[in-house]
Amino acid sequence: PKAPSMQTVTLIPGDGIGPEISTAVMKIFEAANAPIRWEERNVTAIKGPGGRWMIPPDAKESMDRSKIGLKGPLKTPIAAGHPSMNLLLRKTFDLYANVRPCVSIEGYQTPYTDVNLVTIRENTEGEYSGIEHVIVDGVVQSIKLITEEASRRIAEYAFEYARNNQRASVTAVHKANIMRMSDGLFLRKCREVAETYKDIKFTEMYLDTVCLNMVQDPTQFDVLVMPNLYGDILSDLCAGLIGGLGVTPSGNIGANGVAIFESVHGTAPDIAGMDLANPTALLLSAVMMLRHMGLHDHGNKIQTACFDTIREKKVLTKDLGGNSKCSEFTAEICRRVQDLD
Amino acid sequence: PKAPSMQTVTLIPGDGIGPEISTAVMKIFEAANAPIRWEERNVTAIKGPGGRWMIPPDAKESMDRSKIGLKGPLKTPIAAGHPSMNLLLRKTFDLYANVRPCVSIEGYQTPYTDVNLVTIRENTEGEYSGIEHVIVDGVVQSIKLITEEASRRIAEYAFEYARNNQRASVTAVHKANIMRMSDGLFLRKCREVAETYKDIKFTEMYLDTVCLNMVQDPTQFDVLVMPNLYGDILSDLCAGLIGGLGVTPSGNIGANGVAIFESVHGTAPDIAGMDLANPTALLLSAVMMLRHMGLHDHGNKIQTACFDTIREKKVLTKDLGGNSKCSEFTAEICRRVQDLD
Ligand SMILES: CC(C)[C@H](C(=O)O)[C@@H](O)C(=O)O
Ligand SMILES: CC(C)[C@H](C(=O)O)[C@@H](O)C(=O)O
Repeated sequence: PKAPSMQTVTLIPGDGIGPEISTAVMKIFEAANAPIRWEERNVTAIKGPGGRWMIPPDAKESMDRSKIGLKGPLKTPIAAGHPSMNLLLRKTFDLYANVRPCVSIEGYQTPYTDVNLVTIRENTEGEYSGIEHVIVDGVVQSIKLITEEASRRIAEYAFEYARNNQRASVTAVHKANIMRMSDGLFLRKCREVAETYKDIKFTEMYLDTVCLNMVQDPTQFDVLVMPNLYGDILSDLCAGLIGGLGVTPSGNIGANGVAIFESVHGTAPDIAGMDLANPTALLLSAVMMLRHMGLHDHGNKIQTACFDTIREKKVLTKDLGGNSKCSEFTAEICRRVQDLD
Repeated sequence: PKAPSMQTVTLIPGDGIGPEISTAVMKIFEAANAPIRWEERNVTAIKGPGGRWMIPPDAKESMDRSKIGLKGPLKTPIAAGHPSMNLLLRKTFDLYANVRPCVSIEGYQTPYTDVNLVTIRENTEGEYSGIEHVIVDGVVQSIKLITEEASRRIAEYAFEYARNNQRASVTAVHKANIMRMSDGLFLRKCREVAETYKDIKFTEMYLDTVCLNMVQDPTQFDVLVMPNLYGDILSDLCAGLIGGLGVTPSGNIGANGVAIFESVHGTAPDIAGMDLANPTALLLSAVMMLRHMGLHDHGNKIQTACFDTIREKKVLTKDLGGNSKCSEFTAEICRRVQDLD
């Protein structure tokens, strides 16, 4: 069979343990013969013309060309006025949908089993508008901005995602009982889009009720779609159900095929460079990326090798309950990937 | 010993199962010889002068006099324009703090054990300002309002609560990385107040991180204080950890000793009037009320009888995993209350 043509991916290794876990992913991709050419870039913000923060031109140029990025953790900015890199990347590439599949990992014990849901977060507006004012001394307002366009776009993304991933239902998460106009608009757009996806069941639920039900029985949920802040909260909550940010993949999707996949855990400076980090979250994000690129076979193979390694419990990093180094865990996954051929 | 003088409490039985569970609580209070005189009132909103919604004058008058209310569930208004009764009560009596102790109940199994935390929610402002506008067609803004005064008041309440309830720490929950000015103000007030309570440990945590950590290990939390919407979410989430709204008490505290204690579950119209309802949430709210009134012995006795009944598993309502009627469960608690004398 003809080898698939190579595709370029912009790799942003990130800070702290970022380089180690990026190396792990690259090794596993090589073992899987994934047809990916990596283009490594640093995205640490610089001050552009007019004093605006921007990502370095060569990183921007690479992403514009490759359209696909894989990103490790980035340090939280320490300098006041320095922007959150995550926010800057979302903005630069208009990454309007944050997608987090939360699926229980066999062999990795948490209080829950059979979690299998996806949070889809609107990533560009809402409480993240950045518009705030002092009204009078001691009285501050923040503005939550909801637009018809962004609401329709995220709703459409959620239903398309459900259809393309054989998912039966979409739940819109909201507080339209309190924010009648803003969440009301969001909800109305979800309802309208739902009308055009008759094959997908549509339900609506208050955010507080979702949280309550989620910790009581997460298996009742499938695809959840919601405004920005609610997504920030729920996506982390759901990650917690399956074992935390160390095992949860994440993808940020923009228009025209642009997407950045990323591990959402921290940089773990205390263990950086010590070959102790767990590359699972970045690896599973890279698997999402492969599927996004249509490389399902490579994605499935790598995911199987990773999950088999975790289920077997013989070669695990410390945070997963084992004693192995990052490189040993990586080698074990590589071995299994090759066995699967 | 001299019998304590009777104190009046305004009882708002509520809708659906409200009357049954209120009767249960009154019976148990009688068995415990709690020195409470009940004054029953209906609070369903009426239209006052100028077309403003208000609670009926005799209910308002009773609360103004007694200062203490116990409230069952109220139907969600169906008529458009009819206000949420919960919001109206909070507003009418300036109930600025919602307090929910979430404590694991021995014998009632959930995925978690040893949960022992309290959520303290600012109840008057934030995302609940009700101020919203259409900016242009398809663009809506909601205003989140944070004031210095309300932030200081809730922070002070949280630290006082911690001190008076032998709790070691208070965590301020926020998203000041995103809402720098509004959540920033809230957080600053918490920090300032913390300075004056050196006996209580103070920490700060992002809301998303709290959610993540909460489902992974809730035992790390103690008292949590937060703006309105975050409290709406977290209080329900935490209720879910210990078994849901059917077993979680709640209190709404105002200035000058005014307070309304309430079960926060629904009216359960499907089982209303059938002697099947579980009075636990209302009973535990009434226990909070007794403590608020300084009647600790009565409160402790009733709580012990209730928890013993649940632990023994012999006489339980259906939702608690048993086959007993509400009246049987109530009688069992009464028997135990009397045995404790
Ligand atoms: C880092 C921070 C700006 C961010 C957010 O609040 O969105 C983070 O919590 C996330 O979910 O990516
Ligand atoms: C009924 C509704 C207005 C309310 C809220 O959102 O505050 C409810 O969820 C609560 O927590 O009391």
